Amino acid sequence: MSYASQLLDSYPRTFNVDAGILAAAIDALTDCAQACTADADDDLSEHNVAELVKCIRLCLDCADICATTAGVASRQTDYDANVTRPLLEACIASCKSCGNECQRHAMVHAHCQVCEQACRRCEQACKQLIDAIT
Amino acid sequence: MSYASQLLDSYPRTFNVDAGILAAAIDALTDCAQACTADADDDLSEHNVAELVKCIRLCLDCADICATTAGVASRQTDYDANVTRPLLEACIASCKSCGNECQRHAMVHAHCQVCEQACRRCEQACKQLIDAIT
Amino acid sequence: MSYASQLLDSYPRTFNVDAGILAAAIDALTDCAQACTADADDDLSEHNVAELVKCIRLCLDCADICATTAGVASRQTDYDANVTRPLLEACIASCKSCGNECQRHAMVHAHCQVCEQACRRCEQACKQLIDAIT
Amino acid sequence: MSYASQLLDSYPRTFNVDAGILAAAIDALTDCAQACTADADDDLSEHNVAELVKCIRLCLDCADICATTAGVASRQTDYDANVTRPLLEACIASCKSCGNECQRHAMVHAHCQVCEQACRRCEQACKQLIDAIT
Repeated sequence: MSYASQLLDSYPRTFNVDAGILAAAIDALTDCAQACTADADDDLSEHNVAELVKCIRLCLDCADICATTAGVASRQTDYDANVTRPLLEACIASCKSCGNECQRHAMVHAHCQVCEQACRRCEQACKQLIDAIT
Repeated sequence: MSYASQLLDSYPRTFNVDAGILAAAIDALTDCAQACTADADDDLSEHNVAELVKCIRLCLDCADICATTAGVASRQTDYDANVTRPLLEACIASCKSCGNECQRHAMVHAHCQVCEQACRRCEQACKQLIDAIT
Repeated sequence: MSYASQLLDSYPRTFNVDAGILAAAIDALTDCAQACTADADDDLSEHNVAELVKCIRLCLDCADICATTAGVASRQTDYDANVTRPLLEACIASCKSCGNECQRHAMVHAHCQVCEQACRRCEQACKQLIDAIT
Repeated sequence: MSYASQLLDSYPRTFNVDAGILAAAIDALTDCAQACTADADDDLSEHNVAELVKCIRLCLDCADICATTAGVASRQTDYDANVTRPLLEACIASCKSCGNECQRHAMVHAHCQVCEQACRRCEQACKQLIDAIT
């Protein structure tokens, strides 16, 4: 069981969202942030770095947005749907753009294939969370 | 002239947004991120910290979201409106929620008044940027 | 196998550190960043929040430092020991301070016990990495 | 007067460091984080991006480390010198490495010259802060 699950289990108040869906989203977000950071660096080390500039840029955006969304989703105290909902929408858009660009390079670069998987999983997990929150 | 302005001036490609509006937004975002981080800490040191829990939580969210939005707005290479637009919307929502909560404590705590000003300015700068981007 | 491991496996150049030790540190760092973010929020929701102010502050520091260290450790391109080494030392110091404070509350608050475990594991993983890097 | 100065002025407790030195460091850190983020992106848009890979990597590290150090320095509640001191040392090392690499490209790329200035100013401000803290 991830720390995210354990910390939701020991949260002192109640919260209005399924803990399993929330923990899955937090884990997918932190994993995706790391994958995007690493993939941008992998791209920088490739011989064809000039062809990977868009991939690097989108990975840097996606890493930042996923990390921030993980932080906001981890905070349940005085939860504010007005903030969480549009942020999840931005994160879904970022994972989609980054995943699509990684997919273009996935046949040539195995690291882009791994990053695409992280982005797709995170996009799905955020969609499930946005459907679950009130 | 801020570094943000100078760095936009020396950007090697063209970009499709007014440089003054973009630099003003980046500066307001980095300032707001710092103000929210400091205000959350100021709240933690107050005797009535228990009454400031919501303010702390919203400041932490707003700090993270503004810092991430500053990063995304600072990147012009292969600009992706599908990511920038919803992220600016999330940031506007966060600045509004945080500014409103800070306003509730502004008469008692001068630091909340400063933070409210940072949030209001950032909200306006992001609105001007979202109107300017294509 | 974590994304960190998979992305190190597909890194296009060679690197001068054991991949298993590096991946373990990256995973421990991202886990600890999330745990500290969540524990600070759990603390904010406790009735005795005024007694947890130091714990919140150290958790916020530790979350930021672990996230940044995870990013730097994830980048292998043009690795710079002059940056990585003191940053790992700062991260070890932060995990130790935060873990010690969490331990003080671990009997009363289960979430502090979880966070202490995350900090201790991260401290050890960073020590192993600092011993392994050249 | 920056928000950092105003927020230190309204901090509810006392702190054991000169407020002017602390505010100058916080401002230099947030400025440097933005400059490094923008310079990495400027590099990505250059025709000779393959020659700027090391500069991009060091800018990404420096941006993350400066942002985190700004956050830690902005928190005065239950200040912990055991964390702040090594983090400032890591930040000084990062600003030095990044400033040196930017300097190598400063004659060709004006954005690297701006970023070098931000790194040098931040390095000095952090050195002054580390001398001032107890």
